[in-house]
Amino acid sequence: VDSTVQPPAIDFWLEFGSTYSYPAAMRIAPLAAAAGVTLRWRPFVLGAIFKAQGWPPDSPFNWQPAKGRYMWRDLERLCAALDLPFRRPAPFPQPSILAARVALVGLAEGWGEDFARAVYRAEFGEGRPIGETAVIADLLARLGVAAAPALSRAQSDEIKTRLRRETDEAQRLGIFGAPSFVTADGELFWGNDRLEAALAWASKAAS
Amino acid sequence: VDSTVQPPAIDFWLEFGSTYSYPAAMRIAPLAAAAGVTLRWRPFVLGAIFKAQGWPPDSPFNWQPAKGRYMWRDLERLCAALDLPFRRPAPFPQPSILAARVALVGLAEGWGEDFARAVYRAEFGEGRPIGETAVIADLLARLGVAAAPALSRAQSDEIKTRLRRETDEAQRLGIFGAPSFVTADGELFWGNDRLEAALAWASKAAS
Repeated sequence: VDSTVQPPAIDFWLEFGSTYSYPAAMRIAPLAAAAGVTLRWRPFVLGAIFKAQGWPPDSPFNWQPAKGRYMWRDLERLCAALDLPFRRPAPFPQPSILAARVALVGLAEGWGEDFARAVYRAEFGEGRPIGETAVIADLLARLGVAAAPALSRAQSDEIKTRLRRETDEAQRLGIFGAPSFVTADGELFWGNDRLEAALAWASKAAS
Repeated sequence: VDSTVQPPAIDFWLEFGSTYSYPAAMRIAPLAAAAGVTLRWRPFVLGAIFKAQGWPPDSPFNWQPAKGRYMWRDLERLCAALDLPFRRPAPFPQPSILAARVALVGLAEGWGEDFARAVYRAEFGEGRPIGETAVIADLLARLGVAAAPALSRAQSDEIKTRLRRETDEAQRLGIFGAPSFVTADGELFWGNDRLEAALAWASKAAS
């Protein structure tokens, strides 16, 4: 056995305000399992990266109206094709930092992936305001997770610092949008529509 | 026979400076034929649309450097997967108005699609400066088209006006990038990676 051989792996960089992260989050686990690719879910905050690029403090889908109109229709079509519920949240984008912090807690405690999917379903499937603590607490309760300690830990300095560091790491990797996928050999793939290509690359690189 | 039944059809909106229009232009004809979808190639000029949005007078891939770095690597991977030659032209973007005007002439005269593919192959497969009249003349000669009359007609007021009108029409349709595909029932799809979805939509809508 060659101990240097690594199994195929992908880092899945997700932002809870990101529309196309919704179908990616709902699709990735079974596709990765079928491809034999190990996943690491890595929530981060895109706003900080947009800001560092000198962009307006808003979603590009808002300050680029033609692209924004297209995106909502495209997402609606995508969700219909995937049989995913779709409801546009208002306002858009929803504040995503609380969800990202709670997800970091959950990923350390074993319920992070289910929580991430629950957030996306609530936000883009039901149009719920995922920036509100009560909504996050409700999602946690439905997952059988005690909300108070999870929320408390999510607001700890440890988790706040970790989310900032993850965002810094995303920026260092050249990430500029979400969802993004980074293979073990450093290839970056951007967008829900690159998920299959990223998994294929990871499988090929490891074989 | 119901004379109101239309065969499936797509308008293929292409911009000769656009990187992702290259793989789309090379892929679309056989895919459309296989899907039974009639194509109309519609060259337009994206710069005017960017300008109308208040964007800088340059490709977004230049003024968004992280996205630009990613795009070049993504295009290189795509071309490798499609067995298309790839060479990054310098400068980028190349001036595209001459090629668009000549393509309009060619589309009226029956050699426009071959010319469009030849331009993309020269530009992104060989890195040739497609803004230069001599390069366009060479591409025309290789297609067996007399260059002088084609270039003369391309610079006529009729063709200049037609290109401006096509660009106005693209903007009216909500087009903000290239390649874009618009089905007969008005659905807009943006990007080489939406070509298959656009063809499927056109087939479904017409059935």
